[in-house]
Amino acid sequence: MAYNRELVTGENMSDNTKNILLKIQYDGTNFHGWQKQPNGRTVQGEVEHVLRFIAGYDVPVNGTSRTDAGVHALGQCASFNWDNPLPTNKLANIMNRRFGAGGLGRSGLPGDIRVISAVEVPSDFHARFSCHGKTYKYVVDRSGDIFERNYVYQYGYELDHEAMRVAAKAAVGTHDFASFQTTGGIPRETTVRTVTDIAISDEGERTIIRVTGDGFLYNMVRIIVGTLLEIGTGKRSASDMEQIVADATRSSAGFTAPPQGLYLEQIYFDDEFKRGGSTCTR
Amino acid sequence: MAYNRELVTGENMSDNTKNILLKIQYDGTNFHGWQKQPNGRTVQGEVEHVLRFIAGYDVPVNGTSRTDAGVHALGQCASFNWDNPLPTNKLANIMNRRFGAGGLGRSGLPGDIRVISAVEVPSDFHARFSCHGKTYKYVVDRSGDIFERNYVYQYGYELDHEAMRVAAKAAVGTHDFASFQTTGGIPRETTVRTVTDIAISDEGERTIIRVTGDGFLYNMVRIIVGTLLEIGTGKRSASDMEQIVADATRSSAGFTAPPQGLYLEQIYFDDEFKRGGSTCTR
Repeated sequence: MAYNRELVTGENMSDNTKNILLKIQYDGTNFHGWQKQPNGRTVQGEVEHVLRFIAGYDVPVNGTSRTDAGVHALGQCASFNWDNPLPTNKLANIMNRRFGAGGLGRSGLPGDIRVISAVEVPSDFHARFSCHGKTYKYVVDRSGDIFERNYVYQYGYELDHEAMRVAAKAAVGTHDFASFQTTGGIPRETTVRTVTDIAISDEGERTIIRVTGDGFLYNMVRIIVGTLLEIGTGKRSASDMEQIVADATRSSAGFTAPPQGLYLEQIYFDDEFKRGGSTCTR
Repeated sequence: MAYNRELVTGENMSDNTKNILLKIQYDGTNFHGWQKQPNGRTVQGEVEHVLRFIAGYDVPVNGTSRTDAGVHALGQCASFNWDNPLPTNKLANIMNRRFGAGGLGRSGLPGDIRVISAVEVPSDFHARFSCHGKTYKYVVDRSGDIFERNYVYQYGYELDHEAMRVAAKAAVGTHDFASFQTTGGIPRETTVRTVTDIAISDEGERTIIRVTGDGFLYNMVRIIVGTLLEIGTGKRSASDMEQIVADATRSSAGFTAPPQGLYLEQIYFDDEFKRGGSTCTR
């Protein structure tokens, strides 16, 4: 996609203002989610704390997704504006306090957040509004490995992957996904979304479910996963999925799978994901 | 090894008294170590809490090793006596609250402890005094993966494994290991121990160091690892190890590697480990 570099910048931006895009990993276990809140440790709060330390003033960041408490990210994105002279290609290492004397030491990011990359983007780029699609990964594990308990959903039942794949096909497409939305979230103009792919893969004692789409309602991926698990264990039939979607009411769908199995894996700032592309363009 | 089943049992034991050996895994991250203490969450405290819930009276357990805060276990062992009629082969699942209605539900073990097995052993068996040897595993990782931060020592430097192997050979054997002991631990009759093997393996971005011996002083494995890491990065020479052992004083050795990379991997109740055996006999 093309960005118009001639766009007028906002009133608070000087000629030196840079628009920066961060790609961020985090272990969501000990966070009350992404979004800053008055009480409780959040990823956005920690990121903004470090940027404020570097800049000397408040630097609000716009995250692409407001992940919930316990949800992890392999490729969250966030953008912000500043006019700091720091070379952008050094920012990730400095925020991660990787450099001894040159880094921030204990003032850098905590061990459960890591900035993967920082790049300068055109002034009209915005991590949330420029997002075209996302992939979430959900990990179900039968091993009972205690060291994995915060990083998978420990679900002991055998799963019929073929039934789950049949059901998944009925959820792919442009639908009203009201059945797959926890009420109480931020009100949305529409509950119609486009899911381009639901891929189910078998990795030994693990089942990995990847859901890709242009956007997701509150808890939508976790309810899709919970419904697929009920189908995988035979509690529901694969052929039920079409009606569950058509009902457009929460009570028709399955349970909400718990947060610790969920990873925000990838964000797409172009339409490559609609063609099955799997590489991040930034 | 043979146990004398004719040995007289203790005065508190009835004819129905069973001596039980548990094999236990735990994630040490959120524990103040194995040993029970007045304040702070400990593994022994959690295990005894569950046994008391089942038995209706206090059931003191004897652990083989007093692992420190943050140290993990793949094969900790602990023994205890009771006269509970519960079939021993069901005990692990019940303690792990695996069975819905039959298990303990929220009164069972927390998610960061798992009983791998429970077996009845002869009355003269004691998890600590019957132990002949142990293997500790130490994991060093260069990947910087935030999801591994509590389970490895994140050490960014390249390591010269050959130099480390040469040095390790000088530490293997029966020596006074006073150089590898943090002062302030429980006073020991002797600081002479026999280390039968130190194996260093290269697993991509990980270096795994396994130390096997008949017993270890306080922090001995972590100081051996710290010293080997200083040799691996060239801060010390491989040929220094012989003198470090001979000095028999803590200040001669390297730093104490942090606890999160350390796992109590295996405990031997016979002498198989001296012949390079790697299977647990129970």
